Amino acid sequence: MSTSVTCIAPVNIAIIKYWGKRDDDLILPINDSISVTLSTDHLRTKTTITAGPEISKNVLRLNGVEESFENPRIQRCLQEVKRIAKASGKCSKPEMLEWNVHVESENNFPTAAGLASSAAGYACFVYTLATLYGVESEELSGIARMGSGSACRSLHSGYVQWARGERADGSDSLAVQLAPASAWPDMHVLILVVSDRKKATASTHGMATSVKTSDLLKHRASVCVPERVKLVQKAIAEKDFDTFGRIAMKDSNQFHAICLDTYPPCFYLNDVSRSIIRMVDQINNLAEPNLAPVKVAYSFDAGPNACLFLLEKDVAEVSAIVRRVFPFTGTSAEEYYKGIPNDEAAMAAIPPTVLDSFAPEEPNLLRYIIHTKVGEGPKRVD
Amino acid sequence: MSTSVTCIAPVNIAIIKYWGKRDDDLILPINDSISVTLSTDHLRTKTTITAGPEISKNVLRLNGVEESFENPRIQRCLQEVKRIAKASGKCSKPEMLEWNVHVESENNFPTAAGLASSAAGYACFVYTLATLYGVESEELSGIARMGSGSACRSLHSGYVQWARGERADGSDSLAVQLAPASAWPDMHVLILVVSDRKKATASTHGMATSVKTSDLLKHRASVCVPERVKLVQKAIAEKDFDTFGRIAMKDSNQFHAICLDTYPPCFYLNDVSRSIIRMVDQINNLAEPNLAPVKVAYSFDAGPNACLFLLEKDVAEVSAIVRRVFPFTGTSAEEYYKGIPNDEAAMAAIPPTVLDSFAPEEPNLLRYIIHTKVGEGPKRVD
Repeated sequence: MSTSVTCIAPVNIAIIKYWGKRDDDLILPINDSISVTLSTDHLRTKTTITAGPEISKNVLRLNGVEESFENPRIQRCLQEVKRIAKASGKCSKPEMLEWNVHVESENNFPTAAGLASSAAGYACFVYTLATLYGVESEELSGIARMGSGSACRSLHSGYVQWARGERADGSDSLAVQLAPASAWPDMHVLILVVSDRKKATASTHGMATSVKTSDLLKHRASVCVPERVKLVQKAIAEKDFDTFGRIAMKDSNQFHAICLDTYPPCFYLNDVSRSIIRMVDQINNLAEPNLAPVKVAYSFDAGPNACLFLLEKDVAEVSAIVRRVFPFTGTSAEEYYKGIPNDEAAMAAIPPTVLDSFAPEEPNLLRYIIHTKVGEGPKRVD
Repeated sequence: MSTSVTCIAPVNIAIIKYWGKRDDDLILPINDSISVTLSTDHLRTKTTITAGPEISKNVLRLNGVEESFENPRIQRCLQEVKRIAKASGKCSKPEMLEWNVHVESENNFPTAAGLASSAAGYACFVYTLATLYGVESEELSGIARMGSGSACRSLHSGYVQWARGERADGSDSLAVQLAPASAWPDMHVLILVVSDRKKATASTHGMATSVKTSDLLKHRASVCVPERVKLVQKAIAEKDFDTFGRIAMKDSNQFHAICLDTYPPCFYLNDVSRSIIRMVDQINNLAEPNLAPVKVAYSFDAGPNACLFLLEKDVAEVSAIVRRVFPFTGTSAEEYYKGIPNDEAAMAAIPPTVLDSFAPEEPNLLRYIIHTKVGEGPKRVD
């Protein structure tokens, strides 16, 4: 009698960062943000939701561990999807809306790595529920937002903008697609997962403290971000990687600057993150310092891991440099270099004179590297 | 026939930071700054200047190593002190102004530790020259400023404000004393010198890049700093350590936030600096979180070392906690705990329940600790 649906949803990385809420309850941001949706081939949440009259209570399992369904954000997403399902009248089995659900969700990447797992998780939860109840609605982005702000961006493929919105009820604070993944096919992504024993401040707490204590945050939200949003929109439309990359780096820097201007300060970057930033800067200055177009750009979310953006033509060179700067001495290279396979021949062709100008760090500062691309939004997979 | 004078000058640590010039040549800052002059008992530059008709050329030796006298900042300081000596007509041997000089300067702390050595160095150079030529002038602060901006603050004892000034020629960009060291006798200072193999970006270069690229710097200089200057002036006048400490920490954080908002970013704090910040935050939250008055405050200049401010009543407790969090396994405790001797009995009386709440870091993350106080300005010592 029960009905079951399985969907996957992607991780997204913000190029213009979301940091600070204007409404904590509805999760409304103080500024627009722009993100890139990563391919579900390499990072994704997969969620199966089963609804049935025989299910005695709502159950939620994340990566095999039972979690409380009492979480108000989970409750809210469930209620909201049910509400629009009822209103639409399109649910094929309306009695299903009265049944309890069993939710089984898992990531194919370590949740603790701080790789936007809550964004993929809530996007997948809301999308799977909507699929189960037969809902197709532009409101889904707003519902996912109430689970985890940046989850609204994971409902779309490619390049996505989440509008701050003006209304108090948040009805205009939604994510929309700026361009599909196919619009810029040579965009590649390298994720450098940093070995880190320290747990960072939870973003919800850090963000709230920044809003209360950072004197610079308001200036960022009202002056800096609106200018940058326009520049990034134009850069995406024109496939202008130099501008895209420079703004991505500057906005990542400014987001972490705001974290540091918070009292007490929140730290997300560590010494390894800083070595990655120095390496990227050195790569971009290999040709003419400060004049050559950017070859690779970093962006750091609320954790030490780097997300590097680069074009296909530079993948082999940058990968070879990353391998030199961050040597790995373990045995399982497949576990270390994940995602799109390395083009070993192209990497071997990089001139030693280029590589020799980079000083290696001590080995094993990274846990692993994921090579991926820009990708699609959520979809049903069962 | 030659004449020789020896003077010492102190290091100063800014509570409201100087970062960014409005005129690179005259070294005029974009905002006021407020500093604390540290005791010359523990950190000082000592400079001997000899002038004589038999000295064939100007010579400068820093810590035993000959440096070029062609440095335009050195040249400028020498010319300016000579100019006012001539104008005043008070030089006891006017022919001395035509002689070459031999300058021998040394610090009693490692120059490379980034402990404001250029401030003490230029203050001492200008003060010693002025003593040699019989000059007593309020202009000395402006001359030292042209050597190294923050040097102007090292010409005064106690608590010092360096005014941004409004005039294009810099004649009103001078340092003045806000309060003598004796006004707040229970103010103590612990300097935690961090072991660090990486050389930070030179401040002159970092500052210039921040002025060019940081979107937040202008807002800091025009909005945040003027408010903070007033709060710190009042806190010093009222011996309000809680306000003094909070603003010191917030301004240190904001200065490093600006460095991070710079493109490419400048990093001065490292993982050890961040552990110190976390320790200070934990100490301040031992009683009632976010409500108890601040017991200890950190301030970081353009390097990883921490300067901790605290009142006499809290020295034993904070020192004991620092010893627990940053254990030292070497043999030479005298080389590790420098300056004012530890009060071992008071430290032994700190309840173990307090210490046990702090997790020790790995040993030897600090090079040494200097316990000192607020102190006097430059003086002649020969």
